[in-house]
Amino acid sequence: MTGSPDNHPPSAAEAYLDRTPPLAGRRGRIVIVGGGFAGLACAQALAGSDWQVTLLDRRNHHLFQPLLYQVATAALSPADIAVPLRHLLAHARNVGTVLGDATDINLARRRVQLADGGALPFDVLVLATGSRYSFFGREDWRSRSFSLKSIADARRIRSHVLKRFEEAEACTDPERRAQLLTIVIVGGGPTGVELAGALAELARWSLKQDFRRIDPATTRIVLIEAGPRLLAAFPARLGDYATHTLSSLKVEVRLNTKVEEIDEDGVQAAGNRISAGTILWAAGICAEPLGESLPATRDRQKRIEVAADLSVPGLDRVYVLGDLAHLEQDGEVLPALAQVAQQQGRHLGRELRKDGPAKPFRFHDRGDTAVIGRHAAVYAFGRWGFKGRVAWLLWGVVHVFLLVDFEKRMLVSLQWLWRYLTDAHSARLID
Amino acid sequence: MTGSPDNHPPSAAEAYLDRTPPLAGRRGRIVIVGGGFAGLACAQALAGSDWQVTLLDRRNHHLFQPLLYQVATAALSPADIAVPLRHLLAHARNVGTVLGDATDINLARRRVQLADGGALPFDVLVLATGSRYSFFGREDWRSRSFSLKSIADARRIRSHVLKRFEEAEACTDPERRAQLLTIVIVGGGPTGVELAGALAELARWSLKQDFRRIDPATTRIVLIEAGPRLLAAFPARLGDYATHTLSSLKVEVRLNTKVEEIDEDGVQAAGNRISAGTILWAAGICAEPLGESLPATRDRQKRIEVAADLSVPGLDRVYVLGDLAHLEQDGEVLPALAQVAQQQGRHLGRELRKDGPAKPFRFHDRGDTAVIGRHAAVYAFGRWGFKGRVAWLLWGVVHVFLLVDFEKRMLVSLQWLWRYLTDAHSARLID
Repeated sequence: MTGSPDNHPPSAAEAYLDRTPPLAGRRGRIVIVGGGFAGLACAQALAGSDWQVTLLDRRNHHLFQPLLYQVATAALSPADIAVPLRHLLAHARNVGTVLGDATDINLARRRVQLADGGALPFDVLVLATGSRYSFFGREDWRSRSFSLKSIADARRIRSHVLKRFEEAEACTDPERRAQLLTIVIVGGGPTGVELAGALAELARWSLKQDFRRIDPATTRIVLIEAGPRLLAAFPARLGDYATHTLSSLKVEVRLNTKVEEIDEDGVQAAGNRISAGTILWAAGICAEPLGESLPATRDRQKRIEVAADLSVPGLDRVYVLGDLAHLEQDGEVLPALAQVAQQQGRHLGRELRKDGPAKPFRFHDRGDTAVIGRHAAVYAFGRWGFKGRVAWLLWGVVHVFLLVDFEKRMLVSLQWLWRYLTDAHSARLID
Repeated sequence: MTGSPDNHPPSAAEAYLDRTPPLAGRRGRIVIVGGGFAGLACAQALAGSDWQVTLLDRRNHHLFQPLLYQVATAALSPADIAVPLRHLLAHARNVGTVLGDATDINLARRRVQLADGGALPFDVLVLATGSRYSFFGREDWRSRSFSLKSIADARRIRSHVLKRFEEAEACTDPERRAQLLTIVIVGGGPTGVELAGALAELARWSLKQDFRRIDPATTRIVLIEAGPRLLAAFPARLGDYATHTLSSLKVEVRLNTKVEEIDEDGVQAAGNRISAGTILWAAGICAEPLGESLPATRDRQKRIEVAADLSVPGLDRVYVLGDLAHLEQDGEVLPALAQVAQQQGRHLGRELRKDGPAKPFRFHDRGDTAVIGRHAAVYAFGRWGFKGRVAWLLWGVVHVFLLVDFEKRMLVSLQWLWRYLTDAHSARLID
């Protein structure tokens, strides 16, 4: 169906298609780029204020990323962990949502350029575009492996892994079959650990009875970590526990092992070749590229260094939040975590409501978790560490209640309860 | 990743890659093509028998088609109404599932050819490949409209409809905006009626608060039916009730109206042009083409005429079930309904277990339903007809309990209960 979505005639050098939703705001316009934890919390904190707020995202939903690995492993459905941004902000009448792709930030004219030719003018700019996986300069590895940032990624991994089982079932060559049934995961942080545990459970239990020629329980799962232990951000004891628990699920954990090459058929690591049908990359992250044009200081992961009030030094009312921000607290850089992003978003939103200078942001650690198996998790809170069933239950409670939407909480709780009782991975659809 | 999935050397003219799962069966091989209601019921009825049964489908899941329109309208998630075929047949140790695409039936050599070069030899063949939409000779209309047969179709419709709202929100030209907010549905059978009702609810209620420039409640929904009333297969009173209820949801129902043309920008019907951003086709069905090579008699919809025992006259142990079968009972052709297919599959499976000739099949009508809105449905049972809230509840109970998997029943019931209380359409994801 034809025609451009908009018919404004461009008339002057200054002319552009203003995509700002038609709302009034006495104090001016705030544009928030990114509807993740930071951007959404900021928009929600600004609800009912006298700013005119526009939240821009290239997707129509907020995604609960900590549970994304459960979509990739067929335990949850995409809609269980994603909520339309418009729905979350429906009652914030001073906040509009725009679905679009930001291509550039024009600081001189104070507007965000969009891929469709439109633009969003701003008085205050909040950048919360997040991070993506980095391949340490080996961009060719990106196409040979899967990584997990979006719902489309999770669906791709789910379909690919399930298809590999189907191909193995149809295959009569033992060597090729073994390759199809080998999964290599690169990166021993929370995402790598959670993927390894969930895939082991899928293969060892949920699919146990499903095939006639292959035994999915024989699936080989290799978790490769360059550093000396798993979950480097957690206390050492919990990293050791993760290694131990994964080993009991027959996951091969390889520490101090660097990946040297990834090709179509497998991985080369520490001199050994692993022939694999599935390669998952969960190793390093770097900032999304949109912020690159800003005149600001960046760290090695391209995160933008921000002042204590989350503003970018030297720029006029430009703020950076979440994974995109490099902020030190007590001598350490704040980690790329949902709770950091959420607290920053809420803080900035509240400070912008006020008149006068913004207070410095301070992160309050609510504890950090990773799930290893159905009844096994680690939970680190300051110097405290929990593991095993207690941590698993804590993790469940914390995550269910972090879900932004009440309906999701109900449904996800019930699905977990059900899976706890039955071991079922019910979302095993090949797209 | 490279290599063929199978390395059998083709050695003679007869050689082919046998894809049959390695199972024993004293009485021989049954191949069932299609894992819909008919094929699945047949396979389940043969579980534990001394046949070696292979169920072939090009998808890895059984789909509960009567609820597919709820995925298309963002009320349910794909995994809520789809269950992996392997999972449903996991405990039937004499039944294997093959994911693959049948391209031809070789009756002389008694095998089903697969797209990947493999084949499935059979002693008994059961064809249950179902139907697809027909465009009355206008194949070009297929690419200009959406129809609803698979999960991929439902997801496409959902994304397209939601994107149209986004485009309308970004659009400042009133004429183009009105076009984007117009949905035309062709075909006033159950699917057309259910889509019209569910889309009206989505637009009038669920999206009500979400936008700032457009009012989704103004969405124009036009339902076009060539015949004199909606739901032609139901008693006249219920068709009239459907028209009345849809009109109260501000759906424009146009009866006795033939579609003359579909182009990129809309529909031409009974001399009138309707400019539309979304065109949904739910008008006519015809048989899937796989059966075309069989030497059999076909009706106008290309369905294969079968004998009372569901076999194809003149062929040796070839049976046809479900939407693909043309079978008359008491002077009328049995309709293309899930319950007909399911009863036929179960009947044939039971008869094949026995020795001796098969008994004729007889359809027992359990009543037929269509949902028009949240509290409005029609339910026809023989000469009885129910409408309104009672029919809606009957529909809910019947459909939830027809769902083949217990977990799905629980989840779908809870989601319905939740939506009944809140009006939410929670699966509003744009892919």
